[in-house]
Amino acid sequence: MARTSDTDRRHFLRRTAALGAGVVVAPKVVAQESPLAVPAWSTTPGLPLSEGNYGAPSSFEKGVVRRGRKDYRMPGSGSIMSPLANLRGTITPNGLVFERSHGGVPEIDPAQHRLVIHGLVRQPLMFTMDDIARFPSVSRVHFLECSGNTSQGWAGRPPSVQLSHGLISACEWTGVLLSTVLDEAGLAPNASWVIAEGADAAGLNRSVPLAKCLEDAMLVYAQSGEALRPENGYPLRLFLPGWEGNMSVKWLRRLRVAAEPAMTRWETASYTESMPDGSARQFTFVMEAKSVITHPAPEKPLGAKGFVEISGIAWSGNGRIKRVDVSTDGGRSWHPAELQEPVLNRAFTRFRLPWHWKGEQATLMSRAMDETGYVQPTHRQLVAVRGTANRYHYNAIQPWQVAGDGKVTNVHA
Amino acid sequence: MARTSDTDRRHFLRRTAALGAGVVVAPKVVAQESPLAVPAWSTTPGLPLSEGNYGAPSSFEKGVVRRGRKDYRMPGSGSIMSPLANLRGTITPNGLVFERSHGGVPEIDPAQHRLVIHGLVRQPLMFTMDDIARFPSVSRVHFLECSGNTSQGWAGRPPSVQLSHGLISACEWTGVLLSTVLDEAGLAPNASWVIAEGADAAGLNRSVPLAKCLEDAMLVYAQSGEALRPENGYPLRLFLPGWEGNMSVKWLRRLRVAAEPAMTRWETASYTESMPDGSARQFTFVMEAKSVITHPAPEKPLGAKGFVEISGIAWSGNGRIKRVDVSTDGGRSWHPAELQEPVLNRAFTRFRLPWHWKGEQATLMSRAMDETGYVQPTHRQLVAVRGTANRYHYNAIQPWQVAGDGKVTNVHA
Repeated sequence: MARTSDTDRRHFLRRTAALGAGVVVAPKVVAQESPLAVPAWSTTPGLPLSEGNYGAPSSFEKGVVRRGRKDYRMPGSGSIMSPLANLRGTITPNGLVFERSHGGVPEIDPAQHRLVIHGLVRQPLMFTMDDIARFPSVSRVHFLECSGNTSQGWAGRPPSVQLSHGLISACEWTGVLLSTVLDEAGLAPNASWVIAEGADAAGLNRSVPLAKCLEDAMLVYAQSGEALRPENGYPLRLFLPGWEGNMSVKWLRRLRVAAEPAMTRWETASYTESMPDGSARQFTFVMEAKSVITHPAPEKPLGAKGFVEISGIAWSGNGRIKRVDVSTDGGRSWHPAELQEPVLNRAFTRFRLPWHWKGEQATLMSRAMDETGYVQPTHRQLVAVRGTANRYHYNAIQPWQVAGDGKVTNVHA
Repeated sequence: MARTSDTDRRHFLRRTAALGAGVVVAPKVVAQESPLAVPAWSTTPGLPLSEGNYGAPSSFEKGVVRRGRKDYRMPGSGSIMSPLANLRGTITPNGLVFERSHGGVPEIDPAQHRLVIHGLVRQPLMFTMDDIARFPSVSRVHFLECSGNTSQGWAGRPPSVQLSHGLISACEWTGVLLSTVLDEAGLAPNASWVIAEGADAAGLNRSVPLAKCLEDAMLVYAQSGEALRPENGYPLRLFLPGWEGNMSVKWLRRLRVAAEPAMTRWETASYTESMPDGSARQFTFVMEAKSVITHPAPEKPLGAKGFVEISGIAWSGNGRIKRVDVSTDGGRSWHPAELQEPVLNRAFTRFRLPWHWKGEQATLMSRAMDETGYVQPTHRQLVAVRGTANRYHYNAIQPWQVAGDGKVTNVHA
């Protein structure tokens, strides 16, 4: 982000030359004089200002919305995905942040909402939202990913990057460090877990190790500048950077400090992983490194031959992304992509690689590596360890098949 | 952003201790058992998912909107301000980004929109939006500020931080470097300025020095992840990091490369500055370092005595913010505030300082310093140089008067 355009251009020209590209784009050459017709919108005053209104996208963008599966039986339960193929950069606008609810979206009056901290504490406390807002605040950019994101990758082939990878978003979250608030209540010597409970009809509750609560957990009331959206936990949610989304309990109303995990239905019947030997993995908190190409994608096929910018996002629940490699030949050769700066901890990292497409069939892949040295696995590597009976934590490399006509489809390599 | 909570907490405790604070917040102490009533929204399924919809804020946040002055005579002309007192962190959500238009907001069909580059170029070119989107892209977080932001500071006292400082916002902008596109057209040896023209009814046009066009200017089509909003230039705008907002021409349709500036009405009758000696400053491009406390503010008075987090934003068109000092005694003493990391170039920097308010009258101020060493001036210092006949580029320190009852008002120190 701090680099000069000269550096950018030298870098780009070097890269495109290496990949065999010449002219980047071939726009229409026009006459020097009067090259432009005057459109209708230049001849009459436009719409008035949105005085007193909250802004909305252009009507020409009405197809850019969250979409999902519709096979849930519980009223208000389900998930809808962020339209990754239409997104740029590293921030998800709040109107397009993915949504996963288990009992619908409660309409909570913030003046009536309360958070209680009790259990193994010196003094049980009840907080209003005004109390929470008075604490020292922090703002941090982090991704949030449902542990079921890309779950169809275990066996199926969703037809778009939105439906395959869209249960993830990234915002600048603002709130108070949970450690600050726990300090007010005072922890008992045998405190080891915190059981977080939501105020929605599902009453979703999860056990969180105390170490995470004291390390970087936040009580969040704002996302990307403004109050949390209703579907993202308004007025208050827990936020556990890098951990599976359901544990960042929305509509947070209770934190019970305990010596043991509660073994709630959400960490026994759900959000555990069936392994090939019949055992189950439980408390698989961290979302491991992953990446996906968002352009091209099934929703964004290739047009004319020539220069193509391959672009996508990478993230890791274990820290910063260190490197993303891209392949255009199904993994036989790999090219390091450029990473958008600054590369932040447990946030989206946008990667970009110039490519000269000559109209050939191609298989595009991206492979993320994080600062721990962890490398995103192939589908084959992942299934060899975890089998296919699992529903969560699929993070394999995603191949996109490019046909000669530019169409892009989801394949397993 | 990368710091551990331990570091944060030690830092915070040291700071609050230094300022005399003890207990941070005094929430209600409750019984260990059954401390929580069950609210209505926990007993029935909530609203269904926003399948196929673009999300909106909670109905309880309906007062958080852009507001402005209503004294413009041209249809669709005017400005509405971002509600800074309600914003957190460093990103402005797209629905609350400030708006300044001179001929209303055109409803442009991106499929019909064209950009022409002509004048002193090797070959005049016409681009579709698809052409523009094919170029290599960059995403950068920058503020955007109207040169008339805080213009009432020269003489008046707007009643809120929204109306005084709200003609500024910050987004992650995505587009193509202008240098890349100019390269396609080829610059003539005597090319020195680029005249940028918008497609709105005002046809706003400004002359931009070629050096800026080649340094870091962008053709922007996305803000904070999604397509530009209509009021912010959909489908395409110029973006000049750190420079006055009107030059980042919205609804961009023409770039004419020239040897001299065009001396358009927008850089002669408007956007020039009347000086005390009767002369006028022209081409005052850069928005110099500035800061404002957004909490407390007239819209966010103080409540109970005790711990208060003083928080605000700082920015500079000349680079990174290096330091922000905060005073609670009208500028007699200053305390260095904590800066939210990462501190980005020509972006918002959120600053925070813990304060223990004992109920006394106080005058709060913030003073920004950028990496060039430039220090935000006082009102007196600024007026001594520039007089009060000016309408633009007011960047003096903003004092807020805190009364004994916690009410906050705008004063000139």
